[in-house]
Amino acid sequence: MIEVGQEYKHNFIFSQDEVAAFAKVTGDNNPVHLDADFAATTVFKQPIMHGMLGAAVFSRVFGTLFPGEGTIYLGQNLTFLKPMYVNHTYEAIFEVKEIIADKHRATISTSIKNPEGKLVVIGEALLMNTNVIN
Amino acid sequence: MIEVGQEYKHNFIFSQDEVAAFAKVTGDNNPVHLDADFAATTVFKQPIMHGMLGAAVFSRVFGTLFPGEGTIYLGQNLTFLKPMYVNHTYEAIFEVKEIIADKHRATISTSIKNPEGKLVVIGEALLMNTNVIN
Repeated sequence: MIEVGQEYKHNFIFSQDEVAAFAKVTGDNNPVHLDADFAATTVFKQPIMHGMLGAAVFSRVFGTLFPGEGTIYLGQNLTFLKPMYVNHTYEAIFEVKEIIADKHRATISTSIKNPEGKLVVIGEALLMNTNVIN
Repeated sequence: MIEVGQEYKHNFIFSQDEVAAFAKVTGDNNPVHLDADFAATTVFKQPIMHGMLGAAVFSRVFGTLFPGEGTIYLGQNLTFLKPMYVNHTYEAIFEVKEIIADKHRATISTSIKNPEGKLVVIGEALLMNTNVIN
């Protein structure tokens, strides 16, 4: 069972090799993620992680940790506020905002903070899970 | 330059090995994506792709194809309507909805259709690109 107001936090970090692996499997070879020389010419100055790799951490948590097995992902809104960099430790933060018990659904706020404690991604997810949302 | 009403389409397909690679790099090892025996016990009956792997195709297109290099991803809304399966060909469809020229920003509708022509993912992206959004 999960309830309104419940929070969950999950730290994550990705290496340049993992960003390269994400680029390979998704086909998202934007050089801003992979090529330090190119990235140096952009506003970011250094390679940035794919925003969707950060968002995939939300999917990881929902499907495997909180609320966990049986979760069906119905929706996700994402606002990318600041870039994320490789080898930095980020914190994904979740809070249950609403439970729709008869539909086994919940809306959960999703955000990511950088090592300085600043929000880099904000958004909200809609999930279904017949095991733990009742 | 891109303009309101402009459309772009992009077909994609992922194998079970690619879904496994996505699970490995993202840490999203939900067995519904990886374990055919487990998936057979769910409403899906067979392994489904990570919704975020489909969403990563939007990032692939924006960063590398349309509008392409220089794109900065500011936001993405996603509604997952139906499951996506491995080895099925899906079509990602984009349409420019609004251009905010002075900020080099555009809103672009994003959707995915399955082989039967039914929508499986819908949403909208907000992008910035100083090269082609003017």
